[in-house]
Amino acid sequence: MRIAIDAMGGDHAPEVPLRGALKAAQEYPDLEIQLYGQTEALAAYLPDNLPANLQIVEAEEVIGTAEEPVKALRQKKKSSMVLGLKAVRKDQADAFISAGNSGALMAGALMQVGRMKGISRPAFLVNMPCFTDFNKSWVLIDGGANVDNKPAHLHQYAIMGSAYMAAVKGIDQARIGLLNNGKEAGKGNQLTQAAYELLSQEETINFIGNVEPSEVLNDACDVVVADGFAANMVLKSLEGASKAFVTLLSDTLKTASWKSKVAGLLVKEDLKTAFAGLNSDNIGAGVVFGVKQPVLKCHGSAKDDAFYYAILQARQMVSSQLYDQLAQDFEALAQREKEED
Amino acid sequence: MRIAIDAMGGDHAPEVPLRGALKAAQEYPDLEIQLYGQTEALAAYLPDNLPANLQIVEAEEVIGTAEEPVKALRQKKKSSMVLGLKAVRKDQADAFISAGNSGALMAGALMQVGRMKGISRPAFLVNMPCFTDFNKSWVLIDGGANVDNKPAHLHQYAIMGSAYMAAVKGIDQARIGLLNNGKEAGKGNQLTQAAYELLSQEETINFIGNVEPSEVLNDACDVVVADGFAANMVLKSLEGASKAFVTLLSDTLKTASWKSKVAGLLVKEDLKTAFAGLNSDNIGAGVVFGVKQPVLKCHGSAKDDAFYYAILQARQMVSSQLYDQLAQDFEALAQREKEED
Repeated sequence: MRIAIDAMGGDHAPEVPLRGALKAAQEYPDLEIQLYGQTEALAAYLPDNLPANLQIVEAEEVIGTAEEPVKALRQKKKSSMVLGLKAVRKDQADAFISAGNSGALMAGALMQVGRMKGISRPAFLVNMPCFTDFNKSWVLIDGGANVDNKPAHLHQYAIMGSAYMAAVKGIDQARIGLLNNGKEAGKGNQLTQAAYELLSQEETINFIGNVEPSEVLNDACDVVVADGFAANMVLKSLEGASKAFVTLLSDTLKTASWKSKVAGLLVKEDLKTAFAGLNSDNIGAGVVFGVKQPVLKCHGSAKDDAFYYAILQARQMVSSQLYDQLAQDFEALAQREKEED
Repeated sequence: MRIAIDAMGGDHAPEVPLRGALKAAQEYPDLEIQLYGQTEALAAYLPDNLPANLQIVEAEEVIGTAEEPVKALRQKKKSSMVLGLKAVRKDQADAFISAGNSGALMAGALMQVGRMKGISRPAFLVNMPCFTDFNKSWVLIDGGANVDNKPAHLHQYAIMGSAYMAAVKGIDQARIGLLNNGKEAGKGNQLTQAAYELLSQEETINFIGNVEPSEVLNDACDVVVADGFAANMVLKSLEGASKAFVTLLSDTLKTASWKSKVAGLLVKEDLKTAFAGLNSDNIGAGVVFGVKQPVLKCHGSAKDDAFYYAILQARQMVSSQLYDQLAQDFEALAQREKEED
């Protein structure tokens, strides 16, 4: 199995992608890891003896985070991102992982790897922590690739999310929830009301109904299906609230009074442990879902073992033959839709 | 000035509404407060000497939180909510405050008080805390009255929000932000892109551009304009994240280790003080905006002085002649739109 990696994407490139690649190459001899990047920039971080199953592939250009995606993809054909995606297209690699420009990765995956047959609008699948049980996590799909989804897109995302949870997390018949403004059937806007109908009628998935943003952190379901705009609202609100609370807590422990300062010292380690469960690095990388092969997205600020875990995630996605399964699922769906017409 | 109050709405009725009404009546002799509710239920909480400017008005029925709004309004014509709203319509009161069924209050305000001339779709204005400065707060409009807003609605909400901040909070030219999935102009879905154009061209307001959900808690702007569905996603995400963090923190302080237990005792008071700044009771009640007179909504779980502050808020809304101002604003807007046609 061959995994291509963008060594130049993200805030901590090339060190962090390289470190993850080295660790995975050493631990999994069955993997062949291809690291696309500027050989010169990588040189400083290379160990004396590279594992035999880790290959550095020169890519002289880099696509920056702030660059306009489509323009950057067109102009930088020798970038680590374009070359890595091309390797997947040419069947020189089975999957690609990057922490670089999200828009470019999404557009590049579509241009190079190509849309999976039967998928109308590829989506972004985001792995999220479960606050009530750190051994669990959930996924949000579409986590923000699209801004104006149609009900049929959400129907497809539910099938994709369900197949992902079975293949990667070993959860058969994952609980699928529809992100909505109320729990009762009949709630929602035009989009979610119509999507509710489609999901209710989809017999291959375990649709549990509407879920509200207030309960998604508390193990309400395994897969939250949403349009990309609403999902973006939720993700950014959770992010903003988390930061605001951590700041408020930290300010209190540092400055409120001598008693609170002492408390801060006493509770520091336990808080670190408690919040470590929410570390997104080992929860899983995002997935550009709906293209022909696995394309994964690490967070731009990913550190530590994020790439290592993303490589294992990609390995699982390939070895489980998830994409063959999805191809079958969408052929069956197209067949059913044809018969209903 | 006459303020009508629903004594029977909310989790802590009739005690909490009565207590707020008593306090306001005692402190503000210029107010005439009308308390609509079941005289018998209220009797247990009445003081020996009622202030002369507090009047109890018998309303034998109560609309429950779980009741279907329109049906309840039709069937319970003698409910505290219907009678209070009717008093406003008949010019027996200048404003109405309730902590009861939100849907019923919204529908009842429309049916009884009536839509303000020129307003297409009344909205719900929600007051929210600012985490970086507890002396500040911001408003979200539409906070969830509608699920499928049009760009023109958002345009109106911006004007309403701006007028509200000037009249009630004394902020002239409040900073108006459009809730969106990115800061740059051009971001967003069809709705927010079109709304951005309208807000940019509206010269009577101080439109500062897009704001993301991750920054709204940090004084990004004074008025966040949003469609009701997206706003609901944000409000419920903030609520869910807040609860999840408080639980995680509280569990750590209570159970992680003896050191953390000691820390919990030491920091308890300071944390209480820190989080008290986020207490929604004194930030302000919600407003059913776009009807002819002020209709305010306290949170169902409102306690302490929530009603007292809501009465002062209503008083400010009436005395500032906000609604006359809005009537002028919307006449001018209609005139401009006519000229542009």
